[in-house]
Amino acid sequence: MNPTEPDPRPPTVEEAVRRRRATPAFDPARPLPSPLLERLLAAATLAPSSANLQPWRFLVVREAANRRRLRACARNQPKVTQAPVVVIVLGYHHPDRTHLEPMLAMQVASGACTLERAAEARGRAASALRDVRDRALWATRSTMLAAATLMLAAESLGVASAPMEGFDAEAVRREFGVPDDHSVCCLIALGYAAEERPFPGRFGLDEVCYAEHFGRPWEP
Amino acid sequence: MNPTEPDPRPPTVEEAVRRRRATPAFDPARPLPSPLLERLLAAATLAPSSANLQPWRFLVVREAANRRRLRACARNQPKVTQAPVVVIVLGYHHPDRTHLEPMLAMQVASGACTLERAAEARGRAASALRDVRDRALWATRSTMLAAATLMLAAESLGVASAPMEGFDAEAVRREFGVPDDHSVCCLIALGYAAEERPFPGRFGLDEVCYAEHFGRPWEP
Repeated sequence: MNPTEPDPRPPTVEEAVRRRRATPAFDPARPLPSPLLERLLAAATLAPSSANLQPWRFLVVREAANRRRLRACARNQPKVTQAPVVVIVLGYHHPDRTHLEPMLAMQVASGACTLERAAEARGRAASALRDVRDRALWATRSTMLAAATLMLAAESLGVASAPMEGFDAEAVRREFGVPDDHSVCCLIALGYAAEERPFPGRFGLDEVCYAEHFGRPWEP
Repeated sequence: MNPTEPDPRPPTVEEAVRRRRATPAFDPARPLPSPLLERLLAAATLAPSSANLQPWRFLVVREAANRRRLRACARNQPKVTQAPVVVIVLGYHHPDRTHLEPMLAMQVASGACTLERAAEARGRAASALRDVRDRALWATRSTMLAAATLMLAAESLGVASAPMEGFDAEAVRREFGVPDDHSVCCLIALGYAAEERPFPGRFGLDEVCYAEHFGRPWEP
């Protein structure tokens, strides 16, 4: 390989993790091609989830008039209309009621699972879900795994992202028809950066890691 | 490059996303080297978070006796003692009280932010956090972004992972000294797989994506 040529291969996971920034401003003149958006959404769906119930739902907002409506729900943040795509990331509270059987049937059909194993999985999922007191929290956990996957896949394909949680969830619900049994977990703007944001830094592992017991200092 | 030689470069993000599995069983004879674990934790801390407050905390359990205690809190799942490392992933509810000023000082010191911008960021964070009604949910959102980053970084470096939410959070709190203002978001076992798990499949984008309005079919 000629060392003066740029490496055509996408970044590794660690490179994408290091390069990703919460993009402060997007180039409104640069659209996000549909096949690329589709590829990012497909990557997001490969995240793990509780009992493989995949509670994430992605409400994709691209039309300018709808992005204006969404911006009005999101503290008037300019990036909502600058970015060509904003995904309203939702967490569905009750996929076990509607999607457990289709999910198990899919596994049996693909050969990933026998009928006997599917019956065991059904029992385990039912027992695990019965104990869940806070369905919004439950759905949010898996959904944010998918959100992170979406943003890292984006970064790896040269697409800038900005996660946002400064919005009025009730207004988003009303404007976009989101039912009460779906939590509005975050918005993710996708597109191309208009300006770079410097790395804001992170606390060291001595601040955020503990060894063996809460509060006991981390040592590798 | 000799095409018969394996590619020494780590996988791309999309490759890691596709290859990752919730590992059903770990090889208990294969430890996870500390520098590698440290690298995974460092990658996790690069996830985005609300106001860069980084509410994630990683309680790393490696000692066999402690993994046995943790297994007793986690429905006696064998992987908790098979895997050489289990991370108790915590979400801290009030980093704005204790970590906002150190975070802003770090940004100013590194030159990522001027004093004026830091003052604006302080005001924005205070206003955003004042509106948060459910601190557990708030902390969990950012923390799960870090959890996904940890698992993808692991996969990219050949380390198998298994996210778990089948545990008694109160028992984990008691056994590992976790205070009430930290949510136990999930456990993540890390190590090397003892057996492969077939891909369980995912719903298509027609099932989990909507266009412009909730319920309106997705079309690329």
